[in-house]
Amino acid sequence: MIYLDHNATTPLAPAVIAAMLPVMSGVWANTSSQHGPGQEAKRRLAGARATVARLLGCKPAEVIFTSGATEANHLAVRGLLAGAPANRQRVLFGSVEHAGHLRLARALAAAGVQVDYLPVHPDGTLDLAAAQALIGPDVALVSLMAANNETGVLMPVADVAAWAHAAGAVMHVDATQFIGKQVFDFATCGADAVSLSAHKFQGPKGIGALLLRQGVPLLPQTLGSQERGRRGGTENLPGIVGLAAALEALGDITAQAKRIAALRDRLERGLQAALPDTHVWCQGAARLPGTSCLRFGQLSQEVVLQRLDRLQVAASSGAACSSGGSAPSHVLTAMGVSADEALATVRFSLGAGTTVEDVNYLLRELPPLLAPLLCEDLLSAP
Amino acid sequence: MIYLDHNATTPLAPAVIAAMLPVMSGVWANTSSQHGPGQEAKRRLAGARATVARLLGCKPAEVIFTSGATEANHLAVRGLLAGAPANRQRVLFGSVEHAGHLRLARALAAAGVQVDYLPVHPDGTLDLAAAQALIGPDVALVSLMAANNETGVLMPVADVAAWAHAAGAVMHVDATQFIGKQVFDFATCGADAVSLSAHKFQGPKGIGALLLRQGVPLLPQTLGSQERGRRGGTENLPGIVGLAAALEALGDITAQAKRIAALRDRLERGLQAALPDTHVWCQGAARLPGTSCLRFGQLSQEVVLQRLDRLQVAASSGAACSSGGSAPSHVLTAMGVSADEALATVRFSLGAGTTVEDVNYLLRELPPLLAPLLCEDLLSAP
Repeated sequence: MIYLDHNATTPLAPAVIAAMLPVMSGVWANTSSQHGPGQEAKRRLAGARATVARLLGCKPAEVIFTSGATEANHLAVRGLLAGAPANRQRVLFGSVEHAGHLRLARALAAAGVQVDYLPVHPDGTLDLAAAQALIGPDVALVSLMAANNETGVLMPVADVAAWAHAAGAVMHVDATQFIGKQVFDFATCGADAVSLSAHKFQGPKGIGALLLRQGVPLLPQTLGSQERGRRGGTENLPGIVGLAAALEALGDITAQAKRIAALRDRLERGLQAALPDTHVWCQGAARLPGTSCLRFGQLSQEVVLQRLDRLQVAASSGAACSSGGSAPSHVLTAMGVSADEALATVRFSLGAGTTVEDVNYLLRELPPLLAPLLCEDLLSAP
Repeated sequence: MIYLDHNATTPLAPAVIAAMLPVMSGVWANTSSQHGPGQEAKRRLAGARATVARLLGCKPAEVIFTSGATEANHLAVRGLLAGAPANRQRVLFGSVEHAGHLRLARALAAAGVQVDYLPVHPDGTLDLAAAQALIGPDVALVSLMAANNETGVLMPVADVAAWAHAAGAVMHVDATQFIGKQVFDFATCGADAVSLSAHKFQGPKGIGALLLRQGVPLLPQTLGSQERGRRGGTENLPGIVGLAAALEALGDITAQAKRIAALRDRLERGLQAALPDTHVWCQGAARLPGTSCLRFGQLSQEVVLQRLDRLQVAASSGAACSSGGSAPSHVLTAMGVSADEALATVRFSLGAGTTVEDVNYLLRELPPLLAPLLCEDLLSAP
């Protein structure tokens, strides 16, 4: 099996399993307990928090561990909105945020919150002029992803954060797809709150964090004494240690990103050369190194994925969380792509485990399977 | 180290680690992915859900996996309240609920929700007459723990649920301390929603569930496509498999409860015989088998815990989540216990790993350490 769905999730790095196992079996006491084993667990928690802070460029007290990015996103949006002044209650979301995050946007709107969406250009990049126009003095919060999970397009977080701050608003960034794939530094990123999820960078599932800039008011959503009262519930120490170990195991992110981008470009160019009807979405935009979102003429994603399955290649029709549905991608739709073209789109997402042999295999095996279908498709076109 | 703090947390059962490891290393795909590895993960999720449902007496669709009991409690209270009719917005909480749960009660009250508390008698049991009087036609929800984490006292969940239902309200039960220690059956327990946490019964941290009776309206709090739209976020499959394995590993709960209760009774009677100033709270009430909440005269909990530490025995001054603070236990205070006596109280909680040798060691070593202090204490009394 060649796994080209790293944006959906990633395998645990061996170093992560190695870090988690002794904690699972040996450091299981409650970090809130005052006895020896509890205090040892507390020290391990503090150590993992310090590692996360060092590797993400924040202070230990700015790290709030959560059960993942979805919870972190909810905590950020609900918590920051509740912390905003009463005369600032408008919220801006990116129009191509993760489907789960847009559910939250719609729930807020249904509850009477004024919600507006930052549009994107046909090339997938954020419409800066529209964003600037939308950020007014009534805005409490702007919530924008750092990189899109389907197209890989990078969002201008620093620019938008600067405008948000100039307007007196706070800025939340969902960096779920960004952290681990690109160099990240909380101190200089511009955002007030940043969500992340360990399983996107070879860490464990069920653990993530919200980084929250010191002094930014946030109303806790899950109440309890843990995480300085900002997130209740007994800490998942093996998960937290695994998250820290996954960040450490990333090593030289720049070198890895360069390697993966070269493989992605090789894949895209090779497919385009072999199958001229191949259209890569957002190819000209600044993108995550491993993400390739493309269509082969009008071949339906079901057909393409079925052929990939035959080749033992795991790819996706888009976000895992919306796959299985037959609706066209909201990300492509927001770019102005037609439903037919959106439903013809597949996503390859390369990662740490991807090799040049994987790409060569795909370039050798896939075009012969798709070429006859593309001819039929062309002949049957009206 | 003799660990007598099982109500705070428990070590992972070896069978749980054995079940989690192959999933951590081998079944890491996203359960929402349509490719082979994703579908395999989805099957494993369904299998674990079926196991949990079978062992807890509910339908698979009634299981909502969460990051733990704290999240489950929040989902239940906020979600059920939002699902209630507009003319029913009063909420009743047990007065001796977990400290984190009472934070939620106070937050609701601060937000304008009418919150009332079900009082307890001096022996720690629920005041049934007061509860019945409080449950009126304006009540949306009653939230009551199945067993108290500090005293071990069992609460009359079925009675209160019957009154709640007769009044048209729904019933939430925080069974965090109950499940794993007593036989539990969701179908017949009377509650509409039940919270649980795996790490209290030799399962992993960071995973729990809300059991929700089919047809009971609940507004999801963390939005996403997972868990039938009731709890968003990529599923923590290793944690879920670990939760299921922990329930399976419990074996004969009745026999284990009998064994642990006998050890707890041996401990209490032995201490009372050796140190006549020993007072066991709620000793006459129906309690969890392993919980013993007691004081040695007026000896401060710090002094007792320090002596226990010297003996390499891990116990607690009460709930782990409130330990470290110097405030008297809200549980004992609600029973009418004075601050001095509450601050003299320690909790032993025995569990699966506790042996008769552990109890004998404690009965041999602790009284000689405490007896001279109790004499001093008596002499220095006014």
